[in-house]
Amino acid sequence: MKIVTDFIEVKSKGKGTYMDITSAVEKIVEKSEIREGIITIHEMHTTAALVIQEMDGDVHEDTMNAMEGVVPSTRNYRHTYEGIDNATAHIKNQIMGSNLTIPIINGKMALGTWQHIFLVELFKKRKRRVAIAIIGE
Amino acid sequence: MKIVTDFIEVKSKGKGTYMDITSAVEKIVEKSEIREGIITIHEMHTTAALVIQEMDGDVHEDTMNAMEGVVPSTRNYRHTYEGIDNATAHIKNQIMGSNLTIPIINGKMALGTWQHIFLVELFKKRKRRVAIAIIGE
Amino acid sequence: MKIVTDFIEVKSKGKGTYMDITSAVEKIVEKSEIREGIITIHEMHTTAALVIQEMDGDVHEDTMNAMEGVVPSTRNYRHTYEGIDNATAHIKNQIMGSNLTIPIINGKMALGTWQHIFLVELFKKRKRRVAIAIIGE
Repeated sequence: MKIVTDFIEVKSKGKGTYMDITSAVEKIVEKSEIREGIITIHEMHTTAALVIQEMDGDVHEDTMNAMEGVVPSTRNYRHTYEGIDNATAHIKNQIMGSNLTIPIINGKMALGTWQHIFLVELFKKRKRRVAIAIIGE
Repeated sequence: MKIVTDFIEVKSKGKGTYMDITSAVEKIVEKSEIREGIITIHEMHTTAALVIQEMDGDVHEDTMNAMEGVVPSTRNYRHTYEGIDNATAHIKNQIMGSNLTIPIINGKMALGTWQHIFLVELFKKRKRRVAIAIIGE
Repeated sequence: MKIVTDFIEVKSKGKGTYMDITSAVEKIVEKSEIREGIITIHEMHTTAALVIQEMDGDVHEDTMNAMEGVVPSTRNYRHTYEGIDNATAHIKNQIMGSNLTIPIINGKMALGTWQHIFLVELFKKRKRRVAIAIIGE
């Protein structure tokens, strides 16, 4: 049984962008040479999210539109000193989550055919950091 | 320390149904003979969800009604080629999540009295696959 | 490789309160003397949530207002026998989640600068239980 930890740096492209980190994560899994185990992926910010979804820009845009419906930019928020996009990003983060753990089976993450891992930028263009731990053998 | 991986197949009953997979997961935990550790449960699709909730049909129906409020079937979506139920399912998946890790303590998952594990079908009657990894001793 | 399991008891202060459990969790990590690994934190109830967010009362209040928008106290719910705050709490639990796993790197949880771990009370003043498992070396 062994453990590998690592970080991924992501330069996000602005509010509402889905950054596909699947390949970057896969590389860390391959390098670990762990065949059976788990991988934990943790997005280290409070105004971005980490989700699993299809690699389809329409789904991503639909999702961001639905999130805008839940926390409209036109509403007033108490947390205002970084602006409305920041206030709504904090809320969307808690709805979408920022934390995943996936089984590793036969040397690969047990992702379904359509599942990709995305860091979702909820605030603005930023450097984002993702922490990773893999345990297994 | 040992690791066990497995899969569960679930035949869902249609849009909005909660499929209780607690017993199926418990059987895998028992068979593993792991007394202290963790179990990761990962739903492998982008139009279903995995949640922990009470085994109460009213709660499930209330939840699906609330989700309908967030992504109404009457709204237009960009992702349309599989129909409106598919478009909304992709969004609900990201809100409800599809990914759980639970401590195993004294040979059992550390679930509270009312906690059951459900695969929630968000699209339509389907075969669904859940990947599992247990690590511990 | 070793495994440590534990529980945290939290006395919540009523509907919509964010209870910061970061220090309590950090103490268990320190005591475990695990330098590299993962920690799983699981809230054992169906009417509370477990989230990572900034320690900012305004963000918390904004979030609870947004949740009220998703499941208004003025709407009718099927699950009524414990009152409206209970019915909405069950739904919010599934939206916000109650389940986190975080890498441990260099003896500490890999939390970002602003990330704190909160048990969010969604129902009413209650004793809440959180199960923890740490695996690593």
